[in-house]
Amino acid sequence: MRILVSNDDGIHSPGIYALAEELKKIGEVTVVAPATEQSAVGHAITMKVPVRVSKYYKNNEFFGYAVDGTPADCVKMGIRNIMVTPPDVVVSGINHGSNTATNVIYSGTVSAAREAAIMDVPAIAVSVTSHDAREFGYAAKTAALFAQLITKHGLNKGTLLNINVPDLPESKIKGIRLTKQGRSKWDDIYEKRQDPYGKDYYWLTGDLVELDNDMTYDQYCVKQDYVSVSPIHFDLTDHEEYNRMASWEIEKI
Amino acid sequence: MRILVSNDDGIHSPGIYALAEELKKIGEVTVVAPATEQSAVGHAITMKVPVRVSKYYKNNEFFGYAVDGTPADCVKMGIRNIMVTPPDVVVSGINHGSNTATNVIYSGTVSAAREAAIMDVPAIAVSVTSHDAREFGYAAKTAALFAQLITKHGLNKGTLLNINVPDLPESKIKGIRLTKQGRSKWDDIYEKRQDPYGKDYYWLTGDLVELDNDMTYDQYCVKQDYVSVSPIHFDLTDHEEYNRMASWEIEKI
Repeated sequence: MRILVSNDDGIHSPGIYALAEELKKIGEVTVVAPATEQSAVGHAITMKVPVRVSKYYKNNEFFGYAVDGTPADCVKMGIRNIMVTPPDVVVSGINHGSNTATNVIYSGTVSAAREAAIMDVPAIAVSVTSHDAREFGYAAKTAALFAQLITKHGLNKGTLLNINVPDLPESKIKGIRLTKQGRSKWDDIYEKRQDPYGKDYYWLTGDLVELDNDMTYDQYCVKQDYVSVSPIHFDLTDHEEYNRMASWEIEKI
Repeated sequence: MRILVSNDDGIHSPGIYALAEELKKIGEVTVVAPATEQSAVGHAITMKVPVRVSKYYKNNEFFGYAVDGTPADCVKMGIRNIMVTPPDVVVSGINHGSNTATNVIYSGTVSAAREAAIMDVPAIAVSVTSHDAREFGYAAKTAALFAQLITKHGLNKGTLLNINVPDLPESKIKGIRLTKQGRSKWDDIYEKRQDPYGKDYYWLTGDLVELDNDMTYDQYCVKQDYVSVSPIHFDLTDHEEYNRMASWEIEKI
């Protein structure tokens, strides 16, 4: 299996290292990841300025390619410019922090996997639920397992799996559940402060409002100490509203 | 009607000016838009650094608030910090260039409207299909019309309308059609170049591959000289694959 690995925390992060090392046990791994942290960049791509690529070494060994761009840039670059043959699967992560519910929208980790899905390559995004996570072994094994399951069962063209793993010792994790994107979201505001020169600045702050209360939703599932696996796609059409809007008779406008 | 107006091309762009002026005919308009161009930033939000806000004047009159952040930042800031009462509708645009098919994923214009939808405020994203568009009058009138239709008919919570207007004189536009997000996408690659110092750099380039051929899809619709209106939401779950994956028996893993 040929595997492209990327992330949004940057090529230097412990999460991507643990992921790449685990995936090397089941396939040929190419790492193409942002040179610097790119959290919450969503599905940004770099068009107005050029990007640079450099080789990144870890423990004196070549680890992968560092791109001074976004996660989506890295996946495009990896598939089109760096790998000679397209990969069988793209795995993005391991993200430091949850990518459940509306976080999926802001996530660079998920966007890297979604870019692969747009390019018709099956993909996985994998996150551990704490920003302070230190242990990535179980999440890495879960990603490897699902890379193999995708190979066995196939995946809809344009679909990716969004995996969230509770930040717990393996023995405390209760199982794995198939879920949908939850509806929990951030209630946030820009906190107003003053700089040392008396000028105002604003800093985003807020709390996640838990709006899901059953195991079919990703955010609730990880709170119950289960791994959450959601199939995600990039058709944003609200088909229900599309049908309802037929009554608007907009053809006659 | 209280209307928050934003965009991704920046507060100085002709598109947002035409939009705000038209919407002032039907409601009370507050403009909160990026201080600098933010195209293709997707749904990025600013968390690691603070943002600044300044008043922006056009023709010696106060026009709106310039935020040195992303389109999604502007909408959060506009709804939470700047407007005393939340708006009845958020309108983002008028974008210079199409936001059809997979462009929806990369678009800052659509992300501004989607941020409003996440915050339970009905929203519209409006684009003219050419980057060189000079005439925004018809697109502005179309946005105003749909702001009124939303008030009349309501809109699913979490849904926004993504409107694309052909870059044509009003008399050449054939009508308005309700559509879905198309499957057309970019076949792109990073072109390798050398800087004056002999170092490699890469620049994104590519062509849109037209994969849609009926009027129910946005990209095809605008190519046929019709205005396209798609209801878009932020539930990315692939429900079909969710049902199919039940056979993977992952509970037993």
